[in-house]
Amino acid sequence: MAVNFTIPAEHEIYPVKGVEIGIAEAGVKKTNHKDLTIFKFSDGTSVAGVFTSNRFRAAPVQISEQHLQASTIRALIINTGNANAGTGEDGINRCLQVCHALSEQLNISEQAVLPFSTGVIMETLPADRIIQAIPRAIADLSENNWFPAAYSIMTTDTLPKVASRKVQIDCDTITITGISKGAGMIRPNMATMLCFMATDIGINQRLLTSMIQEIANRSFNRITVDGDTSTNDSFVIAATGKHPLFIDSKDHPYYQDVLKALTEVALELSQKIVRDAEGATKFVTVKIDKAQSNEEALKVAYSIAHSPLIKTALFASDPNLGRILCAIGYAGIPDLDTRKVKLFLGDVLVSEHGGIAASYTEAQGQAVMNESEILIHVELNRGSCSETVYTCDFSHEYVTINADYRS
Amino acid sequence: MAVNFTIPAEHEIYPVKGVEIGIAEAGVKKTNHKDLTIFKFSDGTSVAGVFTSNRFRAAPVQISEQHLQASTIRALIINTGNANAGTGEDGINRCLQVCHALSEQLNISEQAVLPFSTGVIMETLPADRIIQAIPRAIADLSENNWFPAAYSIMTTDTLPKVASRKVQIDCDTITITGISKGAGMIRPNMATMLCFMATDIGINQRLLTSMIQEIANRSFNRITVDGDTSTNDSFVIAATGKHPLFIDSKDHPYYQDVLKALTEVALELSQKIVRDAEGATKFVTVKIDKAQSNEEALKVAYSIAHSPLIKTALFASDPNLGRILCAIGYAGIPDLDTRKVKLFLGDVLVSEHGGIAASYTEAQGQAVMNESEILIHVELNRGSCSETVYTCDFSHEYVTINADYRS
Repeated sequence: MAVNFTIPAEHEIYPVKGVEIGIAEAGVKKTNHKDLTIFKFSDGTSVAGVFTSNRFRAAPVQISEQHLQASTIRALIINTGNANAGTGEDGINRCLQVCHALSEQLNISEQAVLPFSTGVIMETLPADRIIQAIPRAIADLSENNWFPAAYSIMTTDTLPKVASRKVQIDCDTITITGISKGAGMIRPNMATMLCFMATDIGINQRLLTSMIQEIANRSFNRITVDGDTSTNDSFVIAATGKHPLFIDSKDHPYYQDVLKALTEVALELSQKIVRDAEGATKFVTVKIDKAQSNEEALKVAYSIAHSPLIKTALFASDPNLGRILCAIGYAGIPDLDTRKVKLFLGDVLVSEHGGIAASYTEAQGQAVMNESEILIHVELNRGSCSETVYTCDFSHEYVTINADYRS
Repeated sequence: MAVNFTIPAEHEIYPVKGVEIGIAEAGVKKTNHKDLTIFKFSDGTSVAGVFTSNRFRAAPVQISEQHLQASTIRALIINTGNANAGTGEDGINRCLQVCHALSEQLNISEQAVLPFSTGVIMETLPADRIIQAIPRAIADLSENNWFPAAYSIMTTDTLPKVASRKVQIDCDTITITGISKGAGMIRPNMATMLCFMATDIGINQRLLTSMIQEIANRSFNRITVDGDTSTNDSFVIAATGKHPLFIDSKDHPYYQDVLKALTEVALELSQKIVRDAEGATKFVTVKIDKAQSNEEALKVAYSIAHSPLIKTALFASDPNLGRILCAIGYAGIPDLDTRKVKLFLGDVLVSEHGGIAASYTEAQGQAVMNESEILIHVELNRGSCSETVYTCDFSHEYVTINADYRS
């Protein structure tokens, strides 16, 4: 039961010139299920990626990082059903076999391939089945496969996540399209999430590498479902250069416009992960204002966004708001003056001077809690920094999904 | 449904000379419910306490800290049904009114009273109802009320938590008895937990103050249910000095024996909180060995103990052990060499060299997962420090309890 989740119509998903996508059934874990996706980029495409901060980085994450540094990238290969994480040297070898097979058939170097896997951790990747399916995925290559690809990268997702925009820059329009997946094991600094975005404009390779970090920090690094940072998180942007606009530096007159447009699509794709989070019934925005530093604002935001007590109260639409004060209090700011803190639910002032606001009534809190989109807004009143984090509630369904995932 | 929880028989709960306990109905939140408890200590008793690290410290916590510094302590007053937290100046005033009323009737100074509250946050404390009930609690004072007191301090607890021992020291026995409460909002550095322990021996006041910190760090600061650190956590030890043994310094020949005995009772009371945790079906010990520092060992232990994905897998008895590797990986040790990490479930080696152990079989993992007491044991193999943390699984029942708590 996703929260206010929109799936665009097929005609609203714009292909990106220079990007072809092919899909096939490899039978990695299940049969009769499309679980293999290939992206092929035209010559001249710049590709940048950011990856999980987990120390148990999956084999494909390790290989992708190496290949990004060593080579220009011409293809992506993505499987579901198996994360190829916690699989040691054997996992690395199997991942390289897959890259090698694709590179031979596309006639590119092995290092021009970025591999991605998502699924159960600590199981052996059936590389042979993936390799056998590669020719069928190649035969399927088309510019119009973004929508089927959004389906083929899903695991516990209930809905396909795709966002696409035509954006006016100067007198012309550019195209940005992307897909993402992920529903649990979601947390700052990436998640069991994959996101693949592309634009038809050109962006200098080095510049794109710095832009993707900034974009991730405003989108995928600001969502959390359960506080678990996965072994496989990956976020990739490709700029194919088929459109005449080429952004070569931060001083380019349209740099900010392009950054904003890419960030908006990434934010939509990241929020879709929260809206379709395992068991979610509410979409919650946690906004912290007037902090001394961004780090401090994030501490408070995540303390609220990770509290099972707050998340279960949100699920129950219960304005048990003392739990929010409690989470602010244990966020790890040793010199926090709680008398200066203001807590708002939506526009309603709930707490100030360390206690209940004189104007607050339970009916006001209840009215906000009954909504499916909820804003928790905290003013720390000790500085000028702000951060916003997106999360969801914690329901019976979350427990059911995660207790039954493998069975 | 508590996990392997034992309630001692009445005759196994030994009174502590110098400690009288009285109980009454104050009707703080519910009627026909004993919600007020008073402890009275004889002259010469040393009392020490440790309190929550939450910045939104409840009014009674703020007052207790002040009174402990200013005075010797002769009485405790504890109410359930209302936490008197997030209540600002008004909450402080109401708490002081309660202390004042008890001090007048016991003919002691107001600062000789430590107040404690537990229940819903950010609601006004009905101090008048508590004050009216004080004479009835005083009339009830008796050395034999430990067991009823364990009941009267319960909130969402399903079972009373009491531990009592006679310990042989040299040729004589000393007595240690304590009660605790708490079932949710439990986390390191205290929890919505209260614990009151007493012993009949004498302990120098300054020494007891340092001992209680050490005892808390091996018991109440090593349990976690849901990662929420409450506003009201308090742990108090009283040493009445009615027994001839008097521990005046760390060099006393029986200091270590007494510290060990007090720690064991505190550990039993803290583990009882986990065994009776909201919705718990498993009692889980997370042991981290061969870390570079204790801080690092605790980071890994809590990363595992707080992961909703691991906790739901434990609930399902599903050996989905990749989730444990994942949690070790995101514990925040940037230079962790994952190839050196060994993961054991009980005695079973699950993972080494960054992947699945060659000897591991799913049947072995399943056998351990089916038990109600589970050991997750990690060797980091980068130092010589160890830490152990106690937690439980995450079930449907947890969501039900916390979604419905106020209703």
